[in-house]
Amino acid sequence: MKRIFVTLTLILVSLLTGCQTGLHRKTASDDVVEQLQQLALSSDLAWQILASLTSEVGPRMGGSESDGRAVIWAVDKMHSMGFDRVWTEPVTFPRWVRNNESAEVLAPAAQRLMVTALGGSPSTGGPIDAEVIQFDSLEDLQAASIEDVTGKIVFLSTRMRKSREGSGYGETVVNRSRGPFEAAKKGASALLIRSVGTDRDRLPHTGMMSGSEPGPRVPSAAMSNPDADNLMIMLSREEPVNVRLNLDVGFEGEATSYNVIGEFDGSEDLTERFLLGAHLDSWDLGTGAVDDGAGVAIVLATAKLISNLSVRPRYGTRVVLYANEEQGIYGGKAYAKLHQLNMHDHLIGAESDLGADRIYGFKTRVLPQAEATIENLARHLKRLGIKREDTEPAGGGADVGQMRKLGMAVIDLNQDASLYFDLHHTANDTLAKVNPEFLRQNLAAWVTLVYLTTSGSGTFGPVEPSD
Amino acid sequence: MKRIFVTLTLILVSLLTGCQTGLHRKTASDDVVEQLQQLALSSDLAWQILASLTSEVGPRMGGSESDGRAVIWAVDKMHSMGFDRVWTEPVTFPRWVRNNESAEVLAPAAQRLMVTALGGSPSTGGPIDAEVIQFDSLEDLQAASIEDVTGKIVFLSTRMRKSREGSGYGETVVNRSRGPFEAAKKGASALLIRSVGTDRDRLPHTGMMSGSEPGPRVPSAAMSNPDADNLMIMLSREEPVNVRLNLDVGFEGEATSYNVIGEFDGSEDLTERFLLGAHLDSWDLGTGAVDDGAGVAIVLATAKLISNLSVRPRYGTRVVLYANEEQGIYGGKAYAKLHQLNMHDHLIGAESDLGADRIYGFKTRVLPQAEATIENLARHLKRLGIKREDTEPAGGGADVGQMRKLGMAVIDLNQDASLYFDLHHTANDTLAKVNPEFLRQNLAAWVTLVYLTTSGSGTFGPVEPSD
Repeated sequence: MKRIFVTLTLILVSLLTGCQTGLHRKTASDDVVEQLQQLALSSDLAWQILASLTSEVGPRMGGSESDGRAVIWAVDKMHSMGFDRVWTEPVTFPRWVRNNESAEVLAPAAQRLMVTALGGSPSTGGPIDAEVIQFDSLEDLQAASIEDVTGKIVFLSTRMRKSREGSGYGETVVNRSRGPFEAAKKGASALLIRSVGTDRDRLPHTGMMSGSEPGPRVPSAAMSNPDADNLMIMLSREEPVNVRLNLDVGFEGEATSYNVIGEFDGSEDLTERFLLGAHLDSWDLGTGAVDDGAGVAIVLATAKLISNLSVRPRYGTRVVLYANEEQGIYGGKAYAKLHQLNMHDHLIGAESDLGADRIYGFKTRVLPQAEATIENLARHLKRLGIKREDTEPAGGGADVGQMRKLGMAVIDLNQDASLYFDLHHTANDTLAKVNPEFLRQNLAAWVTLVYLTTSGSGTFGPVEPSD
Repeated sequence: MKRIFVTLTLILVSLLTGCQTGLHRKTASDDVVEQLQQLALSSDLAWQILASLTSEVGPRMGGSESDGRAVIWAVDKMHSMGFDRVWTEPVTFPRWVRNNESAEVLAPAAQRLMVTALGGSPSTGGPIDAEVIQFDSLEDLQAASIEDVTGKIVFLSTRMRKSREGSGYGETVVNRSRGPFEAAKKGASALLIRSVGTDRDRLPHTGMMSGSEPGPRVPSAAMSNPDADNLMIMLSREEPVNVRLNLDVGFEGEATSYNVIGEFDGSEDLTERFLLGAHLDSWDLGTGAVDDGAGVAIVLATAKLISNLSVRPRYGTRVVLYANEEQGIYGGKAYAKLHQLNMHDHLIGAESDLGADRIYGFKTRVLPQAEATIENLARHLKRLGIKREDTEPAGGGADVGQMRKLGMAVIDLNQDASLYFDLHHTANDTLAKVNPEFLRQNLAAWVTLVYLTTSGSGTFGPVEPSD
C-alpha cells in the first residue's frame, strides 16, 4: 500500500514538473545541473574555505606580511583541493603602509573622532591642527574659492545612498577618489570625508584614492557616519570647529605579491578554459570575509564541485585569485598584460566580488550565437531565484573587466548589495556577517554557470573590446 | 458647512472617547495629562538636550577631564532651563584610567583582536604572551584545575542572549564582574571575555568588574563578538593558540565628581518632591547617547514641561544627575548616604537608565493606599502603549535603587531593551542610535508619571526597605 502511494506521488510530481518546465524535454545535462545545485545547496565547502582564510590569515592588505601568508595559504589550499596544476604570477606595485592614525576635535569642545586614512594618503608629518570647512559635495568644494579653503581641513559630508545594486557607491566614491586632489587644488591642509558606506556604526571605511589623478594630494581620512553626524552638529553652531589630524601613513618603495592560479582540466583536450576569479587581498581593518574572502571561497568551491563530477565538462576551469585589487586592480591588470596575446584561450570569464549575499540576477556580454546556452542557463538559474537582466551588458567586475577590455566574453552574477556597503572596507568585515545559506545559493549559481558554459560548443567570444 | 462638519466630527469623537474610557468621567487633571502628552509627543526638547550633551561634551567617564566638563554642562543647562534652584554635591571615588590597550593572536597565525580593558582592570605591565584556555562559562572555569589554568590567558566565551527585558545581561555579566577574580584564583595570567553584548559588530563592550569582590584580580579585557567567534574557530583546531595582551590601564589615586541637582517647586509649599534621575557619566568609548544621555535628556525635559504648566502640580520635582554610576553607582550611593535622614522628603523616586527605546510597561513599589493614583496612571499610560506589569515590584534602577533600600517608594518605566545591549558600553553608543520618535514617547510617559504623582495626595511611601 505504502509502495503504491509512493509510486503515485512520484508520478504526480513528474507530471507537475513536466507542466512547470513547459515543452522543454529534460536532458542528461539538466540532470547533472540539478544534481550539482542540490550538492551546492547542502555543501559547507565554501564556508569551510572562508573560515580557514579568515582565521588562518585574516586581514591581508596588498604588500603586507599577511598578504604573503595569504599567497601561501592559497597555493596550499589549491594543492590540498586537488587542482590539476597550481602556479603563481608576480604582481608588483607601490607599497602603502598604515602605521598610526587619529583625529580629535579640539574646539569648541574636545572629542575623539574615529577615522581611518584613505589608501594612498600621504602622512601628515605630525599633527595638523586646523579649522574645518564643510562641503555637501565634491562639486561644492570645486566651486569654492581658494581664499576660503586655504589652510583648512576640508570635510566632505555627502551621505551614501543604500540600494540593491550598490549604485549609491558610484555616486559618492568620488569624494574618496578625487577629493584629496580637489582639496589640494584649493590649498586645503587635509581632507576628511564622511565614510563611503551605508551603516551607522562607529567604524570608518577605508579605500583607495585615485592612483591616476595628476597633481598633488592632501593627507586624507574617512570618518565613521556617526562621527560625521556629530561633526555636522558642531558645525551647525556659531563657533569655528578645530580638528587635529595625525596620519602616520604613506608609500614605502615597492612590493611584490602574486596572482595565485589553479586549473582543473576538462574531459577533452581543449585549450580554452573558463576564467573564474576573485581577489585574494583585502583591506587591513577587517578579516576580509565579505570583501573578498566570500568570492575566494565561492570560486574555489565551484571549481572543486565541478572537478568531482564522474564526467567532467568538455572545457577546463582556471581559477585566478588576483593580487592587490584594492589598491588599483594590480592583479587583474597584470594578468591581462601577461596573457594579452592568449585572450582567445579564455572561453568566458567571471568574478565574484560583491560580498556574500544572494544572487538575484545575471547579465552577459557574449556573441549572439551563444544565445541558446544563455537561455538554458537562465532556465536553470531561475530555480535559484535568479533572473536574466537585460538592462546593460555585463562588465565583468574590477579584475575580469581588464580582460573584457581585450575582447574576452564575460558574465556577471549580481549579488544583492543592500548590506554590502554597511561593511565594505571596515573592521566589521568579518565571518559573522556571512550567511551560510546565502553562500550556498551563490555556490549553486556558480556551479550552474560554469558547468553549462564549459559543457557546450564554447562559442561566447571574442566580443567587441570595450572600456 | 465646513463648520457644521467639524462640530459633528467633534461630537462623534467625544462620544467614541466616552465609549472607550467606559464609565470614567473626565476630570480637569485628565485634560492636563492629555495636553502634556500631546506636548511631549511633538516636542524636540529631549532631542536637543541630547544633541547638546553628545556634541558639546561627548564621552564623560567618571573622574576624567570631560566628566568635569559634563558637570559644568549640566549646571549650565539647568540654569538656562530655568530650574528654581541648582546645586552640586561632591562624589569621591578611585580614579581608573585607560591609556592604551591592544591584543593580537601570535600563533598559529598572527591577527589583531579588538579588545577593551574592563573597568577596574590592573595593567599588564607590558605585553603578556600566553596560551589561551577557553571555558564556556564561569562555572566551567570554577570547576577547572589550577594546574590546567596556571600561567594561561583564560577566555570566557559565553554569548549573551537578546530579550526585550534585557534579562540576558544578568546571565552573562558575571563573566565581567567575577571572572577577573575567579581567573586569579586559578593562577591565570589574564582574562579575555566575549563582550557582554548582543551585536555582531567589531566593537568590544567595556564595563566594570566587581568592586566589592575580595582577593586579587588579573588584567582583564573584553573582545568583540566577531573576535570571540574567530578565536573559537582557531581554538577548535589542534594547535595551541597564543595571544599577546597589552593593557596600560589602572587606578590612579582618587577623583571627585558631582551629583548635579536641580529643583522645580510645586504650587504648594510642601517639603516632599518627586526624585527624578538619570546618570550623567558615561563610558569613554562612545558619546554616551544611549547610556545614559537619553535618560538625562528625558528627565530634564520632563521637569521642564511640567514646570511650564500654567498651574504647576502641588509637589515639586527634584532632578538628580548622578555621578559615576558606571564604575560602582557612586552617585546614587553618595546621594542615599547624604540624604538618608530625609528619605521621607521624597514623595517617590524613579530613574531613566535603559536607553532610548519605547517604554512598554511599568511597575511600582508603593503603599496600598496609592492604588487609585496608580490605576489612574495606568489608564493614561495605556494610551502610549504602556501596560502595568505585576510580575514583581519595581526595583528603582541602579542609582534610585539605593534609596529604595532605605524605604523610598519607587516606580519603573520599562524600556524595550532588545537593541540596548547591541550598543551598551561600546564606541557605537552615539546619537544616531536614538530614534527621536521613541524619545518623545518616553517623554510623554514621564510627564504623565510625574504630573499624576505630584498632583495627588502624595501617599506612596515609605515602603518596606529591601535589598
